Amino acid sequence: MAVTASNWRGRFEQLRANKLFELVVIAIIILSALLIGAKTYEETSRFQQALVVLDMGVTAFFLVELLIRMAAERRVLDFFKKGWNVFDFLIVVASLVPLNDSEMVLLARLLRIFRVLRLVSMIPELRILMVALFKSIPRMGYVLLLMFIIFYIYGAVGSFLFVDVDPKLWGNISLAMLTLFQVATFESWATAVLYPAMEHYPYAWIYFLTFIFLNAFVFLNMMIGIVLDVMQKESVAIELENGEGEAAELHGLRSDVRELRDQLNRMESLLKERS
Amino acid sequence: MAVTASNWRGRFEQLRANKLFELVVIAIIILSALLIGAKTYEETSRFQQALVVLDMGVTAFFLVELLIRMAAERRVLDFFKKGWNVFDFLIVVASLVPLNDSEMVLLARLLRIFRVLRLVSMIPELRILMVALFKSIPRMGYVLLLMFIIFYIYGAVGSFLFVDVDPKLWGNISLAMLTLFQVATFESWATAVLYPAMEHYPYAWIYFLTFIFLNAFVFLNMMIGIVLDVMQKESVAIELENGEGEAAELHGLRSDVRELRDQLNRMESLLKERS
Amino acid sequence: MAVTASNWRGRFEQLRANKLFELVVIAIIILSALLIGAKTYEETSRFQQALVVLDMGVTAFFLVELLIRMAAERRVLDFFKKGWNVFDFLIVVASLVPLNDSEMVLLARLLRIFRVLRLVSMIPELRILMVALFKSIPRMGYVLLLMFIIFYIYGAVGSFLFVDVDPKLWGNISLAMLTLFQVATFESWATAVLYPAMEHYPYAWIYFLTFIFLNAFVFLNMMIGIVLDVMQKESVAIELENGEGEAAELHGLRSDVRELRDQLNRMESLLKERS
Amino acid sequence: MAVTASNWRGRFEQLRANKLFELVVIAIIILSALLIGAKTYEETSRFQQALVVLDMGVTAFFLVELLIRMAAERRVLDFFKKGWNVFDFLIVVASLVPLNDSEMVLLARLLRIFRVLRLVSMIPELRILMVALFKSIPRMGYVLLLMFIIFYIYGAVGSFLFVDVDPKLWGNISLAMLTLFQVATFESWATAVLYPAMEHYPYAWIYFLTFIFLNAFVFLNMMIGIVLDVMQKESVAIELENGEGEAAELHGLRSDVRELRDQLNRMESLLKERS
Repeated sequence: MAVTASNWRGRFEQLRANKLFELVVIAIIILSALLIGAKTYEETSRFQQALVVLDMGVTAFFLVELLIRMAAERRVLDFFKKGWNVFDFLIVVASLVPLNDSEMVLLARLLRIFRVLRLVSMIPELRILMVALFKSIPRMGYVLLLMFIIFYIYGAVGSFLFVDVDPKLWGNISLAMLTLFQVATFESWATAVLYPAMEHYPYAWIYFLTFIFLNAFVFLNMMIGIVLDVMQKESVAIELENGEGEAAELHGLRSDVRELRDQLNRMESLLKERS
Repeated sequence: MAVTASNWRGRFEQLRANKLFELVVIAIIILSALLIGAKTYEETSRFQQALVVLDMGVTAFFLVELLIRMAAERRVLDFFKKGWNVFDFLIVVASLVPLNDSEMVLLARLLRIFRVLRLVSMIPELRILMVALFKSIPRMGYVLLLMFIIFYIYGAVGSFLFVDVDPKLWGNISLAMLTLFQVATFESWATAVLYPAMEHYPYAWIYFLTFIFLNAFVFLNMMIGIVLDVMQKESVAIELENGEGEAAELHGLRSDVRELRDQLNRMESLLKERS
Repeated sequence: MAVTASNWRGRFEQLRANKLFELVVIAIIILSALLIGAKTYEETSRFQQALVVLDMGVTAFFLVELLIRMAAERRVLDFFKKGWNVFDFLIVVASLVPLNDSEMVLLARLLRIFRVLRLVSMIPELRILMVALFKSIPRMGYVLLLMFIIFYIYGAVGSFLFVDVDPKLWGNISLAMLTLFQVATFESWATAVLYPAMEHYPYAWIYFLTFIFLNAFVFLNMMIGIVLDVMQKESVAIELENGEGEAAELHGLRSDVRELRDQLNRMESLLKERS
Repeated sequence: MAVTASNWRGRFEQLRANKLFELVVIAIIILSALLIGAKTYEETSRFQQALVVLDMGVTAFFLVELLIRMAAERRVLDFFKKGWNVFDFLIVVASLVPLNDSEMVLLARLLRIFRVLRLVSMIPELRILMVALFKSIPRMGYVLLLMFIIFYIYGAVGSFLFVDVDPKLWGNISLAMLTLFQVATFESWATAVLYPAMEHYPYAWIYFLTFIFLNAFVFLNMMIGIVLDVMQKESVAIELENGEGEAAELHGLRSDVRELRDQLNRMESLLKERS
């Protein structure tokens, strides 16, 4: 029995490593994405039945594929040791929420959309990209905190000063911060936000211009900081690599010279002995 | 006869390499561009006849120039070995589509516009620039794929959630993705897209803010990644160049020291022999 | 008595250095920020009384904390030698302005908002970030002056030419410069500013396009200049560090070789003596 | 007489080099800028007389200052050898156009505005900045040409396809290129340009999206290209500097080792002689 089980495991492992199998999985993921996209068109109501069947097929395939990959491991727990496997597992399990229940339809639909994310876990280049993105998050953390403080202070000031100008824009600190985000993206910031405020407070431009300059200034410095940070690491790495070769050469040279000195010492003592 | 043919080929080759001829070709390309531009003005209807004649002249000139350049090659096939020649050939041939046929007028006009692109193939600096641009495409490929996945997921979610808010913006996944592109360029994203959505779903700002931050984050990382990628290559190249000179110097120095050791060995054995 | 005083000072110093105490201060700062935010919501009128009490509590806590930190110093003057302490002192003292006086309410509220800035002085990483930001100001100074000159000249020209187009946008040089800032952020610059101007002056696009290109050009060059400036310093620093190690190695090697020469000189003179 | 003349020249030279004199000139330039700004306010009509007098004073001062600087040169022609002097001369002479003539008022006013530019020629840091800006122009030339070609082709295609959608935006190739510039700055590009076009041609988004991507792509590559270009030059310069020191050290070391070899040769021949 044990032999048969390990036999099956071997077959599943081969299947999992098979390039064609990977391509089929990617194709099914894309098909699943297209199905989700298709459902957003109204004229698809005629194909409703076909879509439901296809969707069930895709769900079943994903479940089977997940089981194969789990069966290919020595122990099921090993499967959950890789982050990307947990990611796949959650996505597949989440899409098992039944579609029929009328209240759950929206949730089930939303969960099915995240299947598209399996493309990221299937294509190695995207996986590398995602890891690089995650690594760069902490570097930005404190700058984002600083920007949040700027937004909070300006939001509080704005909601005190401009609440009478337009309660929809400045009614409370949340609305004010959203309005400030709109200003930061330069969307209608002058025509819809600045000029109405200037009609009540002619000096409102000071508030907006300092905000824009402060933001641009912090953002610019963050950008430059990150570029330099990453570059410095790269540069140090390159220097180390190059430097190692050269340092090794220099080190070897120096020990050669020391050996020469030892030899000369021996020769000198020989000469002195004889004289 | 063979002599005459090769004689002619030589003359064509000289003509093709002639700087003045190149300038004439560039001038004709600019004239052709101006003709196309002139046709978009209504008041040119008086000069319609002249424009048609000029256009035919330009077309004829391009044909003759192409034939000269083909005749200047040893074999006609050699002409098609260079990508830029194929590019020129296609543009010139495409503009031979007759103007008279009323249905084809628009197509013929459009094809004639691409003659302006011949400027790129005539000016070496622009050709270098284009090659550099083409080379940088694959580097961006996977990032664009990742961004497409983000757009697709947000597009699907958006068309499920906001279809009742504004069917023109969120009617299906294509429209939703176009709307998201508008949001990504910050065009009326708050006044025309966010605020109407927030009237139905007060928490819609989470959807838009995460989308904008995600996009900005991926885009920023892509930019930094590309700059670092190119820089590293440059930096390695410079280090290699510099390093080679220094490494050679160090290598020579080490072999000098080794020769010293051999000489000392000989001297030491001489001394030992005698003692 | 002196012993007791220094005893107390020691305790305050311990308290100030206590990690838990720092966390409590940060928590109170965040609470103070939330209080300020809460006051911008209308529905908080029911909790008005509670908010006032909490606010007084926060003010009292900040005062006590400031006094502890001052008492922890050997001399009170030492406290004011650190910039961040002066910063904290001003913020805490400013928020002591009484709330009751109806005319001062707005001012008192605004001053209380700046308490959030104490987060910056409490979190070391933010303090480092702020110092880095301040250091980068002079580097931008002259570029900002140049941009101001560009804005001033275009503002004067614009207010002469376009005053009849829209006095609200071009009425005087201040308004014109604000309008130009709006153009520089690309907010409704074409639909609301350029097209109305072009109805009066068909060549107004020259004014706007040169302005946009000039701005983009100066801004781009500033960005590149700053990046290069900072990079060069970093790069020199790295080279120096690396170079020092290598230079030391080279220097040591050379003195080794000189010692060899001295030894050989001695040996040669020995040999000559004997021959 | 010649002595007196050279005497006077010496005094003018001293005056020109005087720091206080420079500050006075800068103050007068700023006063002149303020005068120009003041004239754009309506309420200044009361001070009209004072402004005219002040303006004449400033003009006279600039003329005198120019004459002093010319008189300080050995030969008047030497004055015109420096570009910045010619720049100052043109600005001062241009502002001598009389104000009274009613038709020339606008021109005279505009010419007077350019006096502000004398700040650039007076402050050395701004002069350096300007020279750096001018140097970076050729580097951008071919990229701008490529972008112009893209705009021209898309402008021609746009004015053929969309002329019926909105003649104000697409009436001829000039208007179409201006509209495309508006699209490139993302100003109302979707709401005012794309959506109206999509009502006639549902596939118009292909035209706009390819245009935006092409532009962003060329612009991004230009930015990266310039950064790398400048950086490479800097980097080579730094390496050369550093490398020179190290190379000299290495070279010295090698000649030291060669001297050792010569000495050993002498010693070896001594030993051989005696054996």
